[in-house]
Amino acid sequence: MKPPVICIVGKSKSMKLMIMQELISELKAQGLRVGALKYHKHGDFEIDIEGKDTWKYAKAGADTVAISSSMKFALIKKASCEPDIDDIIEKYFSDCDIVLADGFTLSDKPRIIVTDSEEDIEVFKRGCEVVAVIDKNVGRKDIHALALRIVKFCGLK
Amino acid sequence: MKPPVICIVGKSKSMKLMIMQELISELKAQGLRVGALKYHKHGDFEIDIEGKDTWKYAKAGADTVAISSSMKFALIKKASCEPDIDDIIEKYFSDCDIVLADGFTLSDKPRIIVTDSEEDIEVFKRGCEVVAVIDKNVGRKDIHALALRIVKFCGLK
Repeated sequence: MKPPVICIVGKSKSMKLMIMQELISELKAQGLRVGALKYHKHGDFEIDIEGKDTWKYAKAGADTVAISSSMKFALIKKASCEPDIDDIIEKYFSDCDIVLADGFTLSDKPRIIVTDSEEDIEVFKRGCEVVAVIDKNVGRKDIHALALRIVKFCGLK
Repeated sequence: MKPPVICIVGKSKSMKLMIMQELISELKAQGLRVGALKYHKHGDFEIDIEGKDTWKYAKAGADTVAISSSMKFALIKKASCEPDIDDIIEKYFSDCDIVLADGFTLSDKPRIIVTDSEEDIEVFKRGCEVVAVIDKNVGRKDIHALALRIVKFCGLK
């Protein structure tokens, strides 16, 4: 089953990160299994720790590297095209109740727009459903209320 | 489609790592899409880099964290039981031609036994097919020959 996805879109990287973190905590506090997905614009990125076995497998040329234990599973795959959010959600997040995505502005997903500028709202809306517009004065109470709005919007409770 | 899996088993961590690395390179040189999987015995492990957004999502409590770009995809998931190698291969390695696995000694997969001790061979064989037994004097030529043996064993060429 594909869980609902809410994208956090806007220009401010630090604000989006803060909202992702706070919403993850709030949604976890609601007893939900929460997924978090980030779109990375700039091609390659670092995620593994230099010198670890998995890092060495990747250096040796492995196309897919994974490590698995009773507590955690991690996967790093080479890609050759822009990611498709629906494919990712279906394949990797089917055991979550909800997924928050940082970025994926070009997707058709409902979104929270993070901006202080009226003009940006239309730019980031792109014809999609808007769950909320958040500005830089957002406080902890607003995030709590926003989490509840997301839960309701997604029909989770 | 599920690619064939060869487990690298034995007591010596550093020898297994070296053989994984060399075999990945050799199999890549054969034009194959190679997967590498590690079994981590001791519960939790570190894989992300402290301070990265994905690291912060996990810290905030996310059950599944992923990051995606046009060049790479990475996933980190909480787990609550011992991993099943067949599930992992089917779900995450279907786009590989072959997977090398470090560990998973208890699985039923064909294996390369890395040991200097005759006694260990039976311990690590566990009734499974043995592709090769490798000792500490293994050289680059042996690894090349071993890669070719694996390709043939798996019916890949």
